[in-house]
Amino acid sequence: MKINGVPYRTIWLDADGAVEIIDQTRLPHRFETIRLHNLDDVAHAIATMQVRGAPLIGATAAYGVALALRAHGGDEALNSALEQLAATRPTAVNLRWALAEMDAAVRPLAPPARCDAAFDRAAEICDEDVETNRGIGASGLTLLRQHAARKAGAPVNVLTHCNAGWLATVDWGTALSPLYQAHDEGLPIHVWVDETRPRNQGAALTAFELGAHGVPHTIIADNAGGHLMQHAKVDLCIVGADRVTANGDAANKIGTYLKALAAKDNDVPFYIAIPHSTIDWTLSEGSAIPIEERSPDEVTRMTGRTAEGEVVTVDIAAPGSPAANPAFDVTPARLITGFITERGVCPASPDGLKALYPEQANG
Amino acid sequence: MKINGVPYRTIWLDADGAVEIIDQTRLPHRFETIRLHNLDDVAHAIATMQVRGAPLIGATAAYGVALALRAHGGDEALNSALEQLAATRPTAVNLRWALAEMDAAVRPLAPPARCDAAFDRAAEICDEDVETNRGIGASGLTLLRQHAARKAGAPVNVLTHCNAGWLATVDWGTALSPLYQAHDEGLPIHVWVDETRPRNQGAALTAFELGAHGVPHTIIADNAGGHLMQHAKVDLCIVGADRVTANGDAANKIGTYLKALAAKDNDVPFYIAIPHSTIDWTLSEGSAIPIEERSPDEVTRMTGRTAEGEVVTVDIAAPGSPAANPAFDVTPARLITGFITERGVCPASPDGLKALYPEQANG
Repeated sequence: MKINGVPYRTIWLDADGAVEIIDQTRLPHRFETIRLHNLDDVAHAIATMQVRGAPLIGATAAYGVALALRAHGGDEALNSALEQLAATRPTAVNLRWALAEMDAAVRPLAPPARCDAAFDRAAEICDEDVETNRGIGASGLTLLRQHAARKAGAPVNVLTHCNAGWLATVDWGTALSPLYQAHDEGLPIHVWVDETRPRNQGAALTAFELGAHGVPHTIIADNAGGHLMQHAKVDLCIVGADRVTANGDAANKIGTYLKALAAKDNDVPFYIAIPHSTIDWTLSEGSAIPIEERSPDEVTRMTGRTAEGEVVTVDIAAPGSPAANPAFDVTPARLITGFITERGVCPASPDGLKALYPEQANG
Repeated sequence: MKINGVPYRTIWLDADGAVEIIDQTRLPHRFETIRLHNLDDVAHAIATMQVRGAPLIGATAAYGVALALRAHGGDEALNSALEQLAATRPTAVNLRWALAEMDAAVRPLAPPARCDAAFDRAAEICDEDVETNRGIGASGLTLLRQHAARKAGAPVNVLTHCNAGWLATVDWGTALSPLYQAHDEGLPIHVWVDETRPRNQGAALTAFELGAHGVPHTIIADNAGGHLMQHAKVDLCIVGADRVTANGDAANKIGTYLKALAAKDNDVPFYIAIPHSTIDWTLSEGSAIPIEERSPDEVTRMTGRTAEGEVVTVDIAAPGSPAANPAFDVTPARLITGFITERGVCPASPDGLKALYPEQANG
């Protein structure tokens, strides 16, 4: 997607062979890119959320393996890189998926051949992500056209939580991909953007990228979505996910479950947009997903721009009060209308998922 | 309640006859009091939320009438004061209740006698509020003792939203009054404090007053409560309300409805603590309650303390993105376990409310 007219992906190889990313901890206040030169740089970028979003975490980890193998091609370096990267974030399954893909691509090779193969596979993973997300967009576009037909020219109001846009992937996004495609073909769309405390990925990233692309949107406090649904101001919800289990439960950014409850209570369709790499076929239900607990500082401190344009971090809570910061929650399948995938839309059920991914039916 | 060992109410008459309040827009960063000298000062204090919380808004408005009558005792001044104060905040019914009480107390009197009578009635309204809230605490304490007995020494975990503590009233608070009384009698209590975006009354005010009183508590993002309930980390919820209708629907701070949905979904009792003055017997259901829309700046800007101790306001959202800011939502009676009142606890239903307030049964 474009920023100030310049097309970007969220991760790319620069001319010197370093991996370059957009530092998402600086958005929306500053647009800065960072060069990652080695495994430690990549692990740090993932853990500190310079890159975030399940698909982009996977793609970045893939390049982390490649950078590690550039330094040492042996089994020990490979094993150590896989282990270090797997430990950066516990909830998103795309990370493990990407690491398994990299392992499969390079382990059979002689150590000197591994580095080139790793960079090739990492690049493929990125390209595949872009194509997959384009496909998710096409699947979701069908749904949005149906809503638009019913609204007879009035904008289709879509509520989203956190950032599952192109910044969360290599390009296009998952939840936002259908919205970009709808907007580009002229369907009237308006997006309610949950600010998504505590890290404000909605107000900082989703609003930034929708604004950059010209998609009409309004930022709201996370508290407001239920009220908007009660008053028929939301036609459907589309969010991403960090891990979906075989029964259709979905772990996503903390607060997703609350919006799914409100959607159910008000008969608003609640969709989750995911690539195949987000489905964890090894887990039968969401209660088995590990939930990352992050620093309480993310709750008690906030970064913003002063009137003079300086970017500062301030303490916003009562001094001395402790805070807790679970980063994800699990939305049970019973609250999810369907999954929007690169293969189409399916019900949030074991049968629904297996119908789209029959190769997993006996897995 | 006490701040640094000094007992305070939230509103009082000073030696010069001015009405003094704690400036709640400065908390938790600064503790400052303000003198209100006339009607305009009071209207400004309510509209800008220097005072907030339904009961305290009522008490402050009562003094606003008294200050207006000090300047002019005639009918025109009285009518104009009532009108100006009623327009400051649309959702809380205590405001209208207090204005009606003041009107009834002074209108029958000759203009020269009105000012003294108004200050007397305003002081009574404050004293009554304190006694009412003490009674709410006693009613809620019975519930907390039952939970404590079941938990066999482990803390009773109570989730609250916004600030319905002593800062929201003249003293004691509504939702927090039972917690103070439980803590004071040695019951182990722990409070999950929703930060309550966009104005952060939870992280700023509730955490401040619980901390000042020594009640164990943890601040969480508003998004986290559902997850905590899914994992049995919340024993019950207690919140306040700005208006309760005759059928038991309750308008309270935006986001309350989402927590009530999560409580229902996880069999967590959800109580609303209210004084009699919060019940609007003239409205049959919550959809009739006007919902205040506040400035989008409250969503896109945040005030906090820098490392140097300076208090600054920063822009936190993507530049140029619009925001919306509905301030309240309505929780339907079906999601409310009961009301905690100064007369006891009752089901959230017309019959439940009328059983506690039989004088309203034919009203």
